[in-house]
Order: sequence, then C-alpha cells, then structure tokens
Amino acid sequence: VTFDPLFLPLELIVTTSDAAWLMAMLDAERALANAEASAGVIPPHAAEHIAEHCRTDLYDIDELAGEGRMVGNPAEPLVRALRRAVGPEIESCVHWGATSQDIVDSAAMLVTSRALRLIDRYLGYAQSGCERLATDHRSTPITGRTLMQQAVPTTFGVTAAGWLTGLREAQVLVRHVRETRLSAQLGGAVGTLSVLGEQGPEVARLYAAELDLCEPPMPWHSNRVVIIEIAGALAAVASAAAKIASDVVLLSQTEVGEVSERTGGGSSTMPHKRNPTRSVLALANAAHGRTWCAALVGAAPHELERAAGSWHAEWSALTGAINGAGAAIHGVADIVGALQVNEERMRTNLDLTGGLILAERVAFAASVEIGLEQAHELVSDAAERATDDEGGFRGALLNTPGLGLSAEQIDAALDPTVGLEPAERLVDRVLEAGDR
Amino acid sequence: VTFDPLFLPLELIVTTSDAAWLMAMLDAERALANAEASAGVIPPHAAEHIAEHCRTDLYDIDELAGEGRMVGNPAEPLVRALRRAVGPEIESCVHWGATSQDIVDSAAMLVTSRALRLIDRYLGYAQSGCERLATDHRSTPITGRTLMQQAVPTTFGVTAAGWLTGLREAQVLVRHVRETRLSAQLGGAVGTLSVLGEQGPEVARLYAAELDLCEPPMPWHSNRVVIIEIAGALAAVASAAAKIASDVVLLSQTEVGEVSERTGGGSSTMPHKRNPTRSVLALANAAHGRTWCAALVGAAPHELERAAGSWHAEWSALTGAINGAGAAIHGVADIVGALQVNEERMRTNLDLTGGLILAERVAFAASVEIGLEQAHELVSDAAERATDDEGGFRGALLNTPGLGLSAEQIDAALDPTVGLEPAERLVDRVLEAGDR
Amino acid sequence: VTFDPLFLPLELIVTTSDAAWLMAMLDAERALANAEASAGVIPPHAAEHIAEHCRTDLYDIDELAGEGRMVGNPAEPLVRALRRAVGPEIESCVHWGATSQDIVDSAAMLVTSRALRLIDRYLGYAQSGCERLATDHRSTPITGRTLMQQAVPTTFGVTAAGWLTGLREAQVLVRHVRETRLSAQLGGAVGTLSVLGEQGPEVARLYAAELDLCEPPMPWHSNRVVIIEIAGALAAVASAAAKIASDVVLLSQTEVGEVSERTGGGSSTMPHKRNPTRSVLALANAAHGRTWCAALVGAAPHELERAAGSWHAEWSALTGAINGAGAAIHGVADIVGALQVNEERMRTNLDLTGGLILAERVAFAASVEIGLEQAHELVSDAAERATDDEGGFRGALLNTPGLGLSAEQIDAALDPTVGLEPAERLVDRVLEAGDR
Amino acid sequence: VTFDPLFLPLELIVTTSDAAWLMAMLDAERALANAEASAGVIPPHAAEHIAEHCRTDLYDIDELAGEGRMVGNPAEPLVRALRRAVGPEIESCVHWGATSQDIVDSAAMLVTSRALRLIDRYLGYAQSGCERLATDHRSTPITGRTLMQQAVPTTFGVTAAGWLTGLREAQVLVRHVRETRLSAQLGGAVGTLSVLGEQGPEVARLYAAELDLCEPPMPWHSNRVVIIEIAGALAAVASAAAKIASDVVLLSQTEVGEVSERTGGGSSTMPHKRNPTRSVLALANAAHGRTWCAALVGAAPHELERAAGSWHAEWSALTGAINGAGAAIHGVADIVGALQVNEERMRTNLDLTGGLILAERVAFAASVEIGLEQAHELVSDAAERATDDEGGFRGALLNTPGLGLSAEQIDAALDPTVGLEPAERLVDRVLEAGDR
Repeated sequence: VTFDPLFLPLELIVTTSDAAWLMAMLDAERALANAEASAGVIPPHAAEHIAEHCRTDLYDIDELAGEGRMVGNPAEPLVRALRRAVGPEIESCVHWGATSQDIVDSAAMLVTSRALRLIDRYLGYAQSGCERLATDHRSTPITGRTLMQQAVPTTFGVTAAGWLTGLREAQVLVRHVRETRLSAQLGGAVGTLSVLGEQGPEVARLYAAELDLCEPPMPWHSNRVVIIEIAGALAAVASAAAKIASDVVLLSQTEVGEVSERTGGGSSTMPHKRNPTRSVLALANAAHGRTWCAALVGAAPHELERAAGSWHAEWSALTGAINGAGAAIHGVADIVGALQVNEERMRTNLDLTGGLILAERVAFAASVEIGLEQAHELVSDAAERATDDEGGFRGALLNTPGLGLSAEQIDAALDPTVGLEPAERLVDRVLEAGDR
Repeated sequence: VTFDPLFLPLELIVTTSDAAWLMAMLDAERALANAEASAGVIPPHAAEHIAEHCRTDLYDIDELAGEGRMVGNPAEPLVRALRRAVGPEIESCVHWGATSQDIVDSAAMLVTSRALRLIDRYLGYAQSGCERLATDHRSTPITGRTLMQQAVPTTFGVTAAGWLTGLREAQVLVRHVRETRLSAQLGGAVGTLSVLGEQGPEVARLYAAELDLCEPPMPWHSNRVVIIEIAGALAAVASAAAKIASDVVLLSQTEVGEVSERTGGGSSTMPHKRNPTRSVLALANAAHGRTWCAALVGAAPHELERAAGSWHAEWSALTGAINGAGAAIHGVADIVGALQVNEERMRTNLDLTGGLILAERVAFAASVEIGLEQAHELVSDAAERATDDEGGFRGALLNTPGLGLSAEQIDAALDPTVGLEPAERLVDRVLEAGDR
Repeated sequence: VTFDPLFLPLELIVTTSDAAWLMAMLDAERALANAEASAGVIPPHAAEHIAEHCRTDLYDIDELAGEGRMVGNPAEPLVRALRRAVGPEIESCVHWGATSQDIVDSAAMLVTSRALRLIDRYLGYAQSGCERLATDHRSTPITGRTLMQQAVPTTFGVTAAGWLTGLREAQVLVRHVRETRLSAQLGGAVGTLSVLGEQGPEVARLYAAELDLCEPPMPWHSNRVVIIEIAGALAAVASAAAKIASDVVLLSQTEVGEVSERTGGGSSTMPHKRNPTRSVLALANAAHGRTWCAALVGAAPHELERAAGSWHAEWSALTGAINGAGAAIHGVADIVGALQVNEERMRTNLDLTGGLILAERVAFAASVEIGLEQAHELVSDAAERATDDEGGFRGALLNTPGLGLSAEQIDAALDPTVGLEPAERLVDRVLEAGDR
Repeated sequence: VTFDPLFLPLELIVTTSDAAWLMAMLDAERALANAEASAGVIPPHAAEHIAEHCRTDLYDIDELAGEGRMVGNPAEPLVRALRRAVGPEIESCVHWGATSQDIVDSAAMLVTSRALRLIDRYLGYAQSGCERLATDHRSTPITGRTLMQQAVPTTFGVTAAGWLTGLREAQVLVRHVRETRLSAQLGGAVGTLSVLGEQGPEVARLYAAELDLCEPPMPWHSNRVVIIEIAGALAAVASAAAKIASDVVLLSQTEVGEVSERTGGGSSTMPHKRNPTRSVLALANAAHGRTWCAALVGAAPHELERAAGSWHAEWSALTGAINGAGAAIHGVADIVGALQVNEERMRTNLDLTGGLILAERVAFAASVEIGLEQAHELVSDAAERATDDEGGFRGALLNTPGLGLSAEQIDAALDPTVGLEPAERLVDRVLEAGDR
C-alpha cells in the first residue's frame, strides 16, 4: 500500500509482488530439475529433493534482493541459497547448465502469464458492463460530439458498443500474447546450451512443457521482440480503459451530467459535487501503464549475448506496465458495471441548440425538392436568424417558405429521437458479434 | 532530401509522401462513390465521373495542405476541390454520407498498408542476409559476450540465427497487422452512418472491399486500439533492426574487429578508421521510429466521437514511425547483405584471456574424477596464478596435479573450437524452421 | 507544406529549414576561419576568401544531404565542397583543426538560438493576450472547476492570470538557455584541439565570440546536458501552450460555451458548430513538440568521444521539438489575442446548480452562530432536499430555521458575484508583477 | 527492498518513502496552522495543538493510503484523521481555507527539496572522484574513440574532465531548481484563497516561509511548468550519470580493459570475468529515472482548476524520477571513487593499429615541406601498404622518401605520448574552474 493512486485489486498485487517473482524463479528451477531428470541428466531423486526446496517460505526476500543488487540480478543469490538448502550431495544438480538470465526471463514470463490471465478476466467484466449498457441504451438518444462540440444525435448504446469493441480488440491481443508468445528461456552462459550437450534440445523441450510456456526456436537472451509484444498488448488494454474513463469524465461534467459514477466522490463541503474519482484514477493508472510500455518499447537494443543495463531495466518496467494497465481496466470494469445513466439530461442536452444540431438533416429533407446547394443556403440563413427569431431555429425555418417543407416535415427533421435506426443496427451488430 | 540522416529508400519516400496521402484520400473518395453506386445510393455515371477526377495531378497539394490547416484536416478542402472539379450536377454525390475522418483514417490505413508491404520485403532481404551469415558461419568460433565481457565460446552462426529470429518475429507481426487489422473507416458525422439509412451496412461492406481493407465491426473514430497495434509492429521492426546494428557497431570496434561494413566510412585523414556508418544511421533511424511509436502508444484517449487533438497528432506520427522503422530495416538489410566477417580476429580474440574463458569447462572435465566443488577450487587457484606462471593458465593447470587431468585432456578443454556442436545444432534448427 | 497539421509561422519554417542548417554550418566555418586568422593560425586573406564562399547559394542542399547520409553527417561533404570552392591555394585553411561534429553542433546551437528568439517573441504575444484578458475580466465571475466538476466561483481574470504565469515561467527558461547555455563547439578529432596546439584556447575563445555563442569550459562532444536543458525549455513552452489550448477547448464545449475562438471552424452543414480548430491543432503541435523533447531526454548516453547513433538522432529531434513548441505557442498567441468571451454564459453556468456550488459559503456564514459542524449538517440536509423543494436550494435553506440566517444573509451567500475580492487581488498582483 | 535493481542509498529511500510523504503532508498542515495563527486567523493555542498532532506515528499509513484511493488523494483522509486527533474544539481550525491539492503539492515540493539536497551531495561525491581521476591521469595517454572506432590519442584526464563537466552542469540545474523554483501551494478550493479573505496573501506568505519554500506569484494548481523544470534537472542528473556508466562499461570490455570497477562482479565459474555490475545497474536506474522524467514532460495539460488524472499521475512519477536519478548518481559516485585504471592497457591499445591512428599527424608533419595534399596522398599510400610491409606502417613510411621526413621525425609523429599538451591544458582549465 502506498500513496500512489494505484487502485490494484489484491489478487493482482499478489501476482506481481516480490513473492510472486520469487515463486516464479523457484518454479523455473524446479522445472529445470524435473526436465533434466526426465532427460536422464540428473538423477530423479535429486530432482525430487530440489523440488521440495523450491518453496518461497525457505528464503528471505530482502536478503536475496540485497545480494541480487550486488551481483546484478536476483537469480544468482537464489541459486546459491537453493544449493545450500539442498545440501552438498545434490547441490551440483541445481541450476545445471543454466545461467541466471534463464531463470529471471522464465520467471518474468510466468509472472506475465499469470497477470495476463487476471487482466483477461477484468476485460471480460468490463465487457459485460458495456454489453449491458449497450443493450439497455440501444435506443437512448444522446448528442454525438466531435472535437467536444455537439454534432448530430446518436444513441448511448453506440457509445457503449464502441467501448466494448476496444475492449474486445485488447482482449484478443492479450490472449494471443499469453497463449502463443510467452516462451521459456533456457540457453546457458551464452545461449548455446553447451553444457547439456546432445541432451540440450530435449531438456529445453521438457522445461518449457513443465512451465506451461511455449518453446522458442532458440534462446532469446538478447532478442526481445516478445517484450515489445507484451508491451503492445498492455498498452492496448490501458488505452481501451483510458478511452472509457475519459468519456465518463467528460459526460460527468456538471454542465453535461449525462452519466455519473454510482460510488462517486461526494464532498461534505460541496454537496453538489459528484467527482468521477474512479475514472480519474483509472486515467492516472493507464498513463503510468503506458509510460512503462513506452519504456519497454524504447529500450536500447540488448547488446551481444546479454545486455548491459537494458535487461536489468526490464523487470520493474514489466511489473509497472502490468500494474498500470491492470489497475486501469479493473477500475473501468467497476465504473461501467455501476454507471448511472441520466437519460433525461441526454434528452435535455439534445435540445440545447434549439434544433441547430439537426440543421443538416433539415437540409437533406429539403434537398429532395430544391437541390442540396439551395437547401444548404436557405437552412444556413435560417440558422443565422435563429437567435433573433422568436421561435428560434424552428420558427426561422417555418419562415423560410422556399424550403418547401411543411411544419410536420420540419418537426420530423428536428426531432432528435427520429432516425436512429442506423445507430440501433450498429449496436445490434456489435452485440451479436459477441454472442458468436 | 534533408540533413536528417533518414536513409530512406526512394520507394518508401514515395509511399509516405504528401502525394501518397493525397492519392490515398482520393482512393477513399473513389471507393466510396463506387460502393454507393453499387448499392444504388448514387447513379453509376456519377461514380464514374467522380472516379475520373480522383487523380492527384488535378489538385494542388500546397493549397490543400494550407487550407487543411485552417479547418483542421486535409480531407475537408479536398472534398470541396473534388466537388468543384466534378461540377454542379454531380457534386452532391461526392463524399455522400461521409465525414472528413472517414477519408483521412481510410487513407492512413492505405498508406500504412502500402508501406508495410515494403517493410515486409526489406525484412525478407535482411533475413536472407542473416540466413547466409548463419549458413556460412555455422561453425565459426566466436567469443560469446555477456554484459560486454567475454564469457564462453559460441559460433557466429548462432549470432546470425538470433538476428534472424528477431526479424522473423517482427515480420509475423507486420503481416498479421497488414492482413487482418487495417480497416476501412466509414461512419459519417458521429459514426452511425445515419445519412445512408438502411443502405449503410451494405455501402460500408462494399467500400472496404473496394479499398482492399478489412471491414470493421463498427466505425472506429475514437477507438484507436489498431493504432497501438500498428505502432507495436513497427516498434518490433525497429527493435529487431537496432539489435543487429548495435551488435555490428560493437563487433566493429577497433579493439574487437570481428566484422566490418563493406562500404564503411573510410576517412582520408584517418586511414585506419572503418566507421560503421550504416549501422550508426540505422540506430538513429530506429530510435526515431520508436519515438514515434511511443508517441502513438502514449497518445491521450480520443474524446467522445472525435478527438480534439490526439487524432490530428496521429498522421505525422504514423508517417514518422513508418519512415524510421523502414529506414532502419532497409539499412540493416544492406548491412547484413554485405557484412565482412573476420574469422581470424574472432579466433584471436578467443585466445585473449589465455584460456581463462574456458576455465569452467576445465572444471567440468576434472569434476568427473574429483567432484565439482574440489574441481572449482583448484581451477580457480590456477586461474589466479595464471598471470604469474610462465605458461599462463595452461601452465598453471599443468602444475595442478590434483586435477587429475592429462595434458591432452587440458588442451582439449582449453580448445575454443571444440564442443560447439550444440551451437551448430541451434543454427541448423533455426535455418530449417525457415525452410518449412 | 505538408498535410501534417503543423501550423508553423513562415519565419519559423525558414529558421529551422535545411537552408537554415546549411547557413548555420557555413556561419561556423566562417567564424572558424576568422578566429584562426585573428589568432594568426591562417593568413587573413585566406579567411576573407573562405568567408566569401560561405554563402548558401553556392551549394546544392540535396547533394550535400545525400552525400552526408553516405558518410554519416552533412558537415563532411560541406567541407569538401567548400574546399573545392575556395581553390587549391586556400583549401588547407578551411576547417583547419576542426572535426565535423564541431560544425554540426555549433550550427545546431545557432539554429536553436535563432529559433528561441522567435519563440521568445511568440511568448510575448501570448502574454499580451493573456494580460488583456486578465485586465478585462479581472472581475468577471466564472465557475471554478476541479476534476471538471463545478466547484466554487472565481473570475475569468484569475484563469487568464494563471495562463500568463505559465507563459512567463516558460519565457524565463527560454531566455536563460538562449543567453547562457548555448555554446560554440570546437574540439577537433577527439575534443582536445590538438592540431591547434598552444593557440587552441585562443581560437576557441574567438570562435565563440564570432558566433555570439557562449564559450564552454571544454568541448562537449559527448557531454549533452545542454541538450536536456534545451529540451526542458521547449517542453515548458509546449506545456504552457497546451494548458491554454486545453482550457479553451473545454470552455468552448457546446454545453459550456463560455469562450470561443473568433476565427473558429464554422461548418457549412452544421451551422451551430464553432470548432476550436486552432486550439485543437495547438494541442497536436504541443504533443509533437513534447514527444521530441522526451526523445532528447531519453536519448542513450553518448559513447566515449563521439556517439554511435545518439548524436545522429539529435538533429531532427531538435528541429522537431522547436517546430512543435513553436507552432503551439504561436497558435496560442493567436487564440488568446482573439478570444471571444461570453460573460452571459459564464453567469448562466454559475446558476446551473441552483446555488449548490455555494453551499460551503452558506455553511461558513451559518457557522458563526451555530458552529461549523452543525452548520455543515443542516446545509447538507438542505442540499439533499433541494431537488424536491419547490424553491430549490434557496427554498430549502429558507426552510431550515436552525441555520440562524436571514433571507438577506442567505441571498448574499448564494450570490456568486459576491466575495470575489481575493480573486481580483490575485489578478492585480500578477499583472503588477509584469509591470516591474 | 525489491528485486528491482534500484540501488538506492538508505537515506534516499527514507526521503521518498510513504512515511516521508506523510511527514511532508503533516509539515504542510502544521505550517498552515502556524501561518494562520501568526496572521490572527486562528488562535495561537489551536495552532500549537495542531502542531502537536502533526507527528507521523499518530497515523496509519496503510489506512490513509487505502482511504486516499477511495476519494482520489491522500490528503483528504489525513485531514479527517487530523481533525479527529485534535478534537471537536480545534477541528475547525485544521486545514482552514485549504484544499487537498494545497497539501499534496506542498508535500511534493518538500519531498523534492529534501531529495534534491541528497542528490546534490551525491553529485559532489561523484565530482570528487572525477577530479581525482582527472588530476591523477592528466597526462595518461589513451585512445580517443569516435563512433567507437579508435581515432587519435587524448589523455584519460580529459575523459574524466568531460565527466566532471557534465556533473557540474547537472548540479547547477539541481541547485537552481531547489533554491528558486520549489514553491509552497496554497489556494483553497479553486486557487483564489477566497475563504481567507483579505488575510489570504499574508497567510500565503507566512506559510511559504514556514515551509522554507518559495512563495509563488499565484497558486499553481494547474500551471505545472515547475514540474517540467524538476524533471529537466533530474533528467540532467540521470544523463550525466549514464554517460559515465556507459563509458566505464565500454572501457571495461575484455578486449579494451582500460578500466574496471574495483568491487566488480567476480564469477566463481568464470574467473576472468570482471562484470561492470555497478555501471550496468546505474544505467538501468538512469533509464528508469529518465522514463519518469519523460512521463512528467509528456503529461497531458492540467484541466481548468484541477486536473482529472494528470495531477494524480504526478506523485509516483516524481518519486520514480527522483529515485532513478538518485540511484544512478549515487552508484556513479561509488564507481568513479574506486575506479581501477589500467595505464598499461591504455598504452597497449594505442599501439593496436601500429601507428595508423597517428597517420594524420605524420601527414601534418610532412605538409610543412610538401603541402598537405601531397602529404595526405603519400601517407595514405603508406597506410595501405602497412599490412604487407614487414615493418608495418612505420616501415612503409620509411620507404616513402617523398615525404621528406627523417626516421626521427617519423618516430616522433608516431609516438602517441607526444603532443598531448593541449589535452593537459584542458584538464587544468576544468580543474581550475572548480577551484574558483
């Protein structure tokens, strides 16, 4: 817990904690021992003995972290501690043929895999919320806004369907990366697995299987394309979340008032305030997540067979990207799951310009008779007179006989709740796509 | 041409130029007219007439760009110019039901698609170069280096196979994005295609087919996950290229001298210098490409139905990311295609420590008889005496009878060209994966 | 001119163009010749002859740029061209003792210096606009908004004074960097000025004076702290500009309508739209400027005596940062200089909550008699009843006798135009600070 | 302590910890109470009573952090807790007239101020190390390297003087920001200090004085130029540190071997390895620091009177930037303070090209008699023959009678230890500048 507004669910905190990294490193050592026992490289009882000592409670995290900083990575002191733990007879079987980077990289992929599973679930929650909003508000008229100016009507269902689509695209990326790109790392000192000789490939295969990670074509000690791919998936999650949070903040403005967070930040001294606190924090979390993603993207190339610094900068960047994106999407799931929608304000805001946001539709209606150019000109004139005319834009249009539109036709064109079928169809289509 | 060291191939310059953007916007307008004619929204002859005027030579880029800045995007003045060009009878059929963002976004995807096709080809060239290097140097011994310190031997074929693997992974991403994620944009004012009524979905389908782009589930005016995905693919290209260029710079150092660029920057006043100029520029280009990718990743969420600034910041960021990544990978294709490999220097450098880089192997050899712990201790002692002993490390080992190794065994362990079969197998495996 | 929405004033385009860089490199060569003539290193007539050939019209930019990419920087081919131009007798006096980086770095500082002078001027224009707004609207009531929710009243003069303060702080940075940190570069091959022997220090001193740049303590070939400082100043300019543009976009929303750009983007089909086009583009330009600043900040350290890539990435990053920040502040100067302020809407929006935004003030007024805790409780109760009560919040307060406030006292507390003296004092103070 | 390789000195950990932020927030509340008592706004005994309760041990950090996330910032629950602590009589005097952002921003400046004081000290340590290196190695010949290729000789003292200059420039920035730019924040709800009425300015003045921070011209709730300035100073620190660490890594390469970290990472299995562990970690730390600086630079503008997200993203970004830059410079101070310099290897490496790196000097020597063009041509010919000639470059030059140089003259030109006076003068000049 810190003062940083990182609104992390407990299970995600646990998944990316120091203890989680330690467990993942021990998982890698156990998987290595098991793989080597299966391949006949070390005796089965040695692997069993090692596996029994791959428990986090046997090691002191602070001590390992401190020693890890002295030598440059946390796997080195862990291997020494594990060797001490298993005793002199077995110690030479521990970490046989591996290098520290094998353990740290495999652990990083395990932590990432476990965290992406949670993030996948939060994406699902958020999608459910958006689906409900899209269903409930399939036909609820709302002002479409471009460059934050009122443009023409749409439905709030379309807004929610757009949020949903972004979440689905992010989820596809997350699943693709998690299922096909997270690979075990095993290469030994410089990535040739030379110590294992002819058994190297078989051990590598078994090791990946033990870890339930993919088997890479070769060790990726200094080929980090996969790190870019992880960063890309997390950036997509953070961006899809930020899009929703940003829209909620904008639609929650006092002057707009079309939605509000149910649990939103009341204020004892300012009773009218309904601060969109969760959205504001989700935006901050998403920004942090994307900062770390950009750091991963922008990292210097990894030099020769092991990078001198860029590798060491990856661990906390990865954790930061996961936590930022994870907190953002978790927050957004809560927000959309409990969003209060004020249909009345949506309707009121549609009338704010007195029909001017429908001027284009009036011109289209008139163009059937008098052509588009002429129609545009007359409607524009009426729009300019709208503020002076007593009857507003409607009155000005009625006073424009050249348009060739009856009062009924004008009223139909000026009704923001008419003509929303295309919007409704879009909502249906997006919802149906999810049923497949 | 500018003083910026952006080493762009002409075809890529042409593909991302202002003229290319103009052509892509006109392609979008033509596709829209054709789609609407096919759907019966506008008359076929109108579509033909419009198509005849979708030629770049009819428009003044500078004028469009200047006017575009006044109104906020270049499509708006283009639509006006196109309407003027087709004349009063047809003008109302131009851009029917569309909004500026439909045209700019579709054009952006066309430019991206065309550029990614070139980048895919450059990735192929670079892969060929790496395949040749991996084949030719499958067994060429070289020092593996971690944290830029000599570690243990590998082969230069493994280095090239690692480069190759990164390039292949980047290519998979590029192809995936190009073939499945680049979607046509068509939504009208706020993304509901309302003007087209019931024909909207059909027009959208035909429009995407005309453009040979994917049809999205719904308009993506302010859902920009795909932009993140494009950025991710380009960042992967830039990173895979930068990895190679960085290794070439490091291996080209005067003190290392294991590779050199064939065309490399000679100097009239410093005749010994072989500057790795192409690699240096590829690094700068890759850095710029990744900067733009990070800008796309870090862009603020797009507000409501059209962003107020973030959208406008995308166009040159996209072009910058394409050009940076494209220049980097094109440069790297040239570099690896003509790389001079100095096997002699690789061999000399392997001997630089007088066998110390093989100390671990000596200890393994000895451990069969005396156990690993004892072996390590004796070998470490010998290593420490190495500088004093006349015979160096070899001499010190010969003077360590407790090791239980014969002179022949010691010489075998100290030979850096022995025991490289695991490295060779890795090279074979990577090369075979490419044949499939 | 490109489709990129970079709204650059012509004079800034000229200042950072290829021609401007060429001129600056020639300025550096001329200054070097003059300095060496003054120090007696080369004959005076040689310097004169060189100076006569330091004219941009004698050289082909495209050719120099193309050759520059072959060798890695544009100064090298320029020196060759200049030597050819001055002829065989004088050629050895050209560029005597210098290296390419001396010329490129000095040129970069000249370009930066000239551009910062313009940016300083635009900051001045923008400040004038803000000063006028602060003066005119010193007492114009407006709703203060936190987390984009209405909070309590302030004056629009305070808003403008805040903008002004940011601009002033950015200007201080720009001036500080321009006047004290932009240094001439002269070090020869590896930064020791060895070719000039004992005359090195004197030539370096005269060279800096000729260029009207600072004289650094030693060559800064690979110490780039000054680049960070330039990036910092430009980032401050871009941020101060973006703050203003962002506020204008928010206050221009249809539902807020408190300000509008005078020249703002009308729409033929949507006559009610007043797109804040200039602000939107200023936001995009500022984002690009800050992207380049971050690229300069994040650049890898420069290796040993000259960087292998990071140096080459600086030139266009510097130009990009200047152009982005420059376009943003120039746009903002136009925006604030012609901003339309709608005092009526400001007043209407203050009443939007029916006095609720002044609940805290009512509680303070009541607390004199009944204590703060009790006052808060009663006011909160009244606020909750406000929607039901016929008389709104005011009615509810009148129906709360325990408050001990008369109708007059309640009305005074609910009047948003009362109690703005502290705001007015702030405006006065900021304006007076500018007069000093 | 975490597995992240953030090599933070304990005192810096303490200075930026949650407890440090809590203490700083309490410092702000106490300062506010004292200022208001001095101005007669609250009774003196209330201020005393409040001050007695501004002790960190009275509050539960986890609880405050948790509640802070619910409402969006940690000051809000702290104020409530402080009010509970002081009891009903005094509670209304707590936080009087202030808003949460006043407390958080002031606390951020206090934390920054305290951390910058430490960073200033580390910069001093690192400077001492560089001064010693520059003094000791004023005349130690070393190869100057550009684009990582051997160029011409310089002295290691010049390298150290360059490092020193970067550190000094960063220190100037740090001190400037700390002494003149860190301002107290006090503005109340929307930055007008309205609750304090006429006493506002006096309270603001006293509050800043109590905190030993600057008094700003007006509240800076959403004008964040100072945040850019802090980021700029920290980026300069991180960059100056990274430059040194990067050079140490490069000069430590097995093939170069000119320096090594005294404490450097030995390896039991690879006894020859001297990993530059501290430098590698300093590079990672500096990268993280600059990532956070870029995040601060790139933050979206702060909306209206308080940002909806960008403000909340600042706190951990600021802490991250401080910790990254602080860890980097602290590590570098250790590195340069104990750097082992191998003069012998420097000398050996100078001879690696057999004199070719001095070809330019030979040409200069010959040019006195035969002109530079002719001299260059003959020397280049000799350089090309150098590998074939038995006597190497020297032999080839001796076999070039047209040069007009005696064997003694050739030997003098080829002696890398001759002609280093300009380098030595540079070192003297930089060291003397520090004495002033």
